[in-house]
This record gives sequence, structure tokens and C-alpha cells, in this order.
Amino acid sequence: MNFSNYPESVSNSNYCDRTWSVTSENDTKIIIPSGALKEKEPPKFPVFFNPAAKFNRDVSIQIYKTFIDFKNDKESFFVDTMAGSGIRGLRVANEIPKITKIIFNDFNHFSIQVCKTNAVLNGVYAKCEFYNKEICNFLSSKISYENRATIVDIDPFGTPAPYLDCVLRSVENGGLISVTATDTAVLSGVYPKVCYRKYYGYPLRTSYSEEMGIRLLISSIALVASRLDLSIIPIFSHGYRNYLRVYCKVSKSNYLANKIHEKLGYVVHCFNCRHRYFIKNLYGVSDCNKCHKRVTIGGPLWTSQIFDKDLIIKIVHSIAEDGNCPTEPKESNPNPLLDFFSVALNELDAIPYYYVNDEVGKVLKKNVMNVKKIIELLKTNGYQSSKTIFAPNGFKTNASITEIKKLLI
Amino acid sequence: MNFSNYPESVSNSNYCDRTWSVTSENDTKIIIPSGALKEKEPPKFPVFFNPAAKFNRDVSIQIYKTFIDFKNDKESFFVDTMAGSGIRGLRVANEIPKITKIIFNDFNHFSIQVCKTNAVLNGVYAKCEFYNKEICNFLSSKISYENRATIVDIDPFGTPAPYLDCVLRSVENGGLISVTATDTAVLSGVYPKVCYRKYYGYPLRTSYSEEMGIRLLISSIALVASRLDLSIIPIFSHGYRNYLRVYCKVSKSNYLANKIHEKLGYVVHCFNCRHRYFIKNLYGVSDCNKCHKRVTIGGPLWTSQIFDKDLIIKIVHSIAEDGNCPTEPKESNPNPLLDFFSVALNELDAIPYYYVNDEVGKVLKKNVMNVKKIIELLKTNGYQSSKTIFAPNGFKTNASITEIKKLLI
Repeated sequence: MNFSNYPESVSNSNYCDRTWSVTSENDTKIIIPSGALKEKEPPKFPVFFNPAAKFNRDVSIQIYKTFIDFKNDKESFFVDTMAGSGIRGLRVANEIPKITKIIFNDFNHFSIQVCKTNAVLNGVYAKCEFYNKEICNFLSSKISYENRATIVDIDPFGTPAPYLDCVLRSVENGGLISVTATDTAVLSGVYPKVCYRKYYGYPLRTSYSEEMGIRLLISSIALVASRLDLSIIPIFSHGYRNYLRVYCKVSKSNYLANKIHEKLGYVVHCFNCRHRYFIKNLYGVSDCNKCHKRVTIGGPLWTSQIFDKDLIIKIVHSIAEDGNCPTEPKESNPNPLLDFFSVALNELDAIPYYYVNDEVGKVLKKNVMNVKKIIELLKTNGYQSSKTIFAPNGFKTNASITEIKKLLI
Repeated sequence: MNFSNYPESVSNSNYCDRTWSVTSENDTKIIIPSGALKEKEPPKFPVFFNPAAKFNRDVSIQIYKTFIDFKNDKESFFVDTMAGSGIRGLRVANEIPKITKIIFNDFNHFSIQVCKTNAVLNGVYAKCEFYNKEICNFLSSKISYENRATIVDIDPFGTPAPYLDCVLRSVENGGLISVTATDTAVLSGVYPKVCYRKYYGYPLRTSYSEEMGIRLLISSIALVASRLDLSIIPIFSHGYRNYLRVYCKVSKSNYLANKIHEKLGYVVHCFNCRHRYFIKNLYGVSDCNKCHKRVTIGGPLWTSQIFDKDLIIKIVHSIAEDGNCPTEPKESNPNPLLDFFSVALNELDAIPYYYVNDEVGKVLKKNVMNVKKIIELLKTNGYQSSKTIFAPNGFKTNASITEIKKLLI
């Protein structure tokens, strides 16, 4: 590998002394800086690779594969806009044969050299293209107009907000975008002003802030799309530690874009009594209707469904039938991926928030039962209730905090 | 001129039979289809030219010239993203010598040929560049990054909304964008759902809907900018018949972008008693505090200043000192351009709405005095009041509708 092409900032550092390793993820072989496997925070240079994001990529592959099966086009192509080591695109090339072309782009010149090497290593070079451009320049010059992509992925360090327009312009009618945000402090409520200017809504720093972040990310994508005469339908959303990730189907439709206001709303939260509910508009909202204290309002954000259950049921069946487990089995869980999608399948995703059992325990000043039992109890008493993929100790329900307290006291 | 390059749709029509005329606007000569001078609605093909927009262009030249004087850079360049006949860029080339390069772009191939011819005709070809690309492709490949423009103009048929991010990315730190919207039915309240999805706020179909439209256009630019870590300051705004036009200075600043929420708000309007006021957030808003009927809310929209008074005073002095009048004098008004900027200079632009004397007359069921007298009366009684460039029969004031009625009854 030719190190003379390192950017100056890199070649002047000690990066050239680094060793390289060949590792594999599922059946994809990959050359990466050895540091990525040893260090807690994988280095950005010369090439970024995060082994801890394997589960995230396993989820991607399941969704892309099922989406492409549903679509059933003769040809389809996948664009990895910030490719890094190329791992996501390479796994697509290896694991989803129906995707006939994979396009890698990265602003880091060296990253694209590594992607090329890795494509050769996996014997998929012939169906790959490589670009080394700034993302918006790349998308508007190479992917837009008569050459739009079936799936476009963006997985930046930090926020995807500045690139959303370019990503949306480059996907075909009926295509899919997958968007990662790692500025979770912003989306979960630590910096509400930054959140408003990047995602057009206010976050709520609550026990369910991860779901608020997901719904703010989706609404911001929907609002950018609507400006471009596009409409989105989220088909899957999840979060893990410092990343939030959403998958949205994109349609060219003024008619649907005009209905965006029906999909957005506000979550009203009372920090005094923990009451929470959602509304479509703010006319007449004042103090908490349970305890009469001042409430806090999050949004506007996506208050409609965030899962395509038809797609998820197909994924669940496919993993179950497949027999093997693409993710590492754990002692407590023989097939974490199957479990993950099964929770999503049953999640009440039209409710844009959840409760956490510790939080309810704090209000009641006692230890409460585990989530599984709470859900059973709520259902027995005629309420809707489900687990949530956003928190293992969380539960969704249409019962109010007063009703939950009555049952658990 | 080679007509063989017409797009097929054009060359198959009778456009080739059209005659061409040479006309001039101020000192700029221009070849245009004769139809543009004869027909009520100027034809879009082969090349668009609207002679009725001369006043609009006169205003542009004054603002660009003064802005460039303030900036005082060694080199500066102007980008006309949808050039049409090239008239705006050619006038910039002729009338603002401090602008050293003019870049014309149009998606219509023939338009760029006409721009080139017109540049030769005016002896300014040497300082011009020409591109024939889709606007976002053009801006992201030719103008962005190390080659950003001092001034970028966008003047589309209809809405500029889908292009705002590309325009903002291509202007330098401290540069200027000028944005025209001609979808006035959307911005003035005929299609509120379309307005929300394109401009991120609700319009109000009132007597002051033109100013609401301007402020929605500005807030949408500000919201797109903030996502790109940019901040805008509107320096001038005006409307005339079917167009609204704003001029915004653009700064690269996370700090300022984080303050966008301070510049936005809502206008609350009561269609029963005509009471109107503006607020920063909707918490606790319910019925009219004058007549207790349900109010209608417009926004979020730009509720801060829309004029840079330092710039306008310089323009007013410059036109007055210059002695000659760049716009056609009218019998009632020897210098309409001077008059126009003088009204803007004195306008109370921190109040985001105005009253119209006919409207107040209707409420009082009598003919009321003319605007000049109303303003004098309000001032005599200790209120602030001014004319507005958005309506010759409009007046701005900090007096409430009840106070206005008391004075005029």
C-alpha cells in the first residue's frame, strides 16, 4: 500500500508506523489499521473502522436485503457516501447479490485506496465504483438526475444534518436512505438550541430521550424532503450508545409531501409528576392537566409510526428460518438479532415515548417489578403495552402515569 | 445565432420563427425575443426576459453596489444561477465595476448562448464565465469550497425552496444572497399546507400577507442556513405583484446559528376583531385577549428586523447625491427609487405586520383618513408609526387595534 498519498497532516504524524491487520466480519475480509481492533476509540486516520458497530451493520444488511427483495428490480445500486474502510458497502456486495453495483465515496483520499484494496480482497471489485469527493459535490455530480441510487447510506462523525438535502436528491423514487447521527448529546437534550437549528425541533432530556432523538432525526429528514417535493416513510429506527440510525423510504410526491404536518407533533412532558402525552398542535397548551405545574414541550417531531411491520415480519421469519445467527450469541440470548427485530415487531410505535421501570420506581419510592411483568399487568388491566428497542428497561403503554402508579403501588 | 441547438421541444415549435429585438435597460444593451416586449406574460422559451422587472433590478443594483462598497474587497464575484437573458448579471457587469467576475448559469442551453451574445454586445465578455448545468450540480461543482462567491442570486419561476441549501453553500463568509420567490399564492396563505412543507411555517391570509410571505421566506432561508452552520442577516426585503425578494448576508458561525430561535416567532391574528400581535413561543396561547374569540397563528417566521438601515441610508444618500433617477419618473413621483428606499429607511421593521386603512375603515364602518394622516395622528398620541414598503395604504404601529379604533372613530 502506497503511503506517499497520505494527507500531509497524516503523513507527518506517526500513522505511517502503524501496522495493518486483516480481519473479517461475517464473510467479508477487510484490511484495517491494527489500532482499530486494539484501541477503545477507533482512530479516524488513516482509515476509520469501528468493530463495535458490527451489530449495527448486521441490522443494515437485514433491512437492505429485505427492502431489495420487496422492490424486486432488475438492477439496483447502493451508495456508501462516507465509506471509511468500505466495510458496509463490501458486506452489501458479499451478502446481497441482488444489489448489482456498489459505489464508494470518501473525502479522505486514503480511505478510497483502502476501499479499493478491500474490494479486490473480496473479489467484488468488478461491481464497485470509487470516488474521492466532498459528499455534496459527489452526490450532485455523480448520483443525481438520471442516475439516482436505490439505497444511499450516510454515516458521518457527528450530525448528518448538513448533507440531508444532497442525500435525498440522489435517491430514486421508491428508494431507501439510511442515516446515522452520532451527535446524541444534541438530539437527547443536552444542547436544545443546537438541536433546534440542526433538526428543527426541541429535544426533551428525559428517560426516553433516545426515542425523542430518533423522532427528531426523522422529522428533520421529512422536513428537508418536503422542501424538495419528496415524502418519506420511516421503515426502521434504532439507537445504541452514541448512535441513532434511521431507514426511510423516499417517494417523489407533492401530494404526500403536503401531508407532512399530519405526521409531526409535540411531546408534552411534566417533570413534576412524570405525566407525558403527545399532541398535533400547540394551540391552548398550558400547564399539566394532572398536577397543574408547568410542562415542557419537545418537538415538532415525528409522532407517526417508525417501523414498517410488513418488512420486519419478513426479516424475523428470514432470520428464524435461516437457522444460523449472524450476530454473536450471548449466554442469555442465543440470537440477539432475532430478539431485536422481534421486539421492534411488537413495539407500539405510534406512541412516541416510553416509561422506564426505575423512573416509575423513583416516583413510587419503591422497587417496582421488571418490565415483562409490568407489561403483562397493564395488558391484563385492558391497556395496550409493549417492550421498546430503545431501552431494555422501558415499556410503552397508552395508560397515563396516574393509571400506571395506581397499578404498581 | 445558431438555432440548431434549441431543445427539441422548442425547435419543434414555432419559436424559430420568432423575431429578436435589441433593447436596453439603463446602459445595458440586450438581445431578447421580441415577444418579451410585446406579450403581457413574457415567454419562457427560447429565453426569458421580463421588462416589467426593471424596478426590481434597479433595486438589486443599488443594494449590490452599496454592499460591495461596504465590503471593499480587492476582488469579488457575482453568480447569476438562473440567468435567463443574462440581464441582471450584465447590469452588474456594467454598473458595478468593483465586481470583477460575473458567472452566468442556466439549465436552458439556449439561454447561455444568448447570455454570451449579450456579454459580447456590452463589451464585458472578458470578465464573464458561462455554465449550462442544473443549478445544484453547477453550484456544488463550480462555486463551492475554495471558490465561493461574493453574491449569489436566485430568481426562479415559482419557489426557490428546493435550491436554498445549494445557494447557501456557495456563498463566501460575509457574502450576500438574493432570493426571489414568485409562488406568492403559497406564501400569502392560499395553500397553507404547501407553505408549511416548503417554508416551515404557516402563512396568514390577511391584509398584510405580503409581509408574512417575506418573513416566511427569510425564516426558511435562516433554517436551512442554520443546519449548515451558517447564520443570515436580512439586509433588504420587498415585494411587488407576484414576486417577493429578500437580500441576506451570510456568515459562517455556529455561535450565531445557535441563536436562530431568537429571531423567529409567531404572529397571532384575530379574524373577528382584527387584533394582531407577535410572540416568541406558543406556550399558553389560546383565545383573543381582546374579544375572546379563537385566534389564528402564523409562523414560525422571522420576527426580527428585515432592513439594514446603515445600508439603506447610504443608498438614499447616493441616489439623492447622484441627482439622476435610475427609474422612470412618474407624474406623482419624480424619483420612485429614492421614495422607495426612503420609506424602507423609516419603516418600523421590528413589527412584523401592518394595518391597511381600508381594513380599519371596514371595522369602523366609515371612510377613514389617508395613511399619512393616520401615522401623524398616531405619533401625536405617543405611539410609534410608519409607512411600509409592502403596501401604499398600509401603516405600522405599536398601537393595538382597540387604540387605533379609539383614535379614528
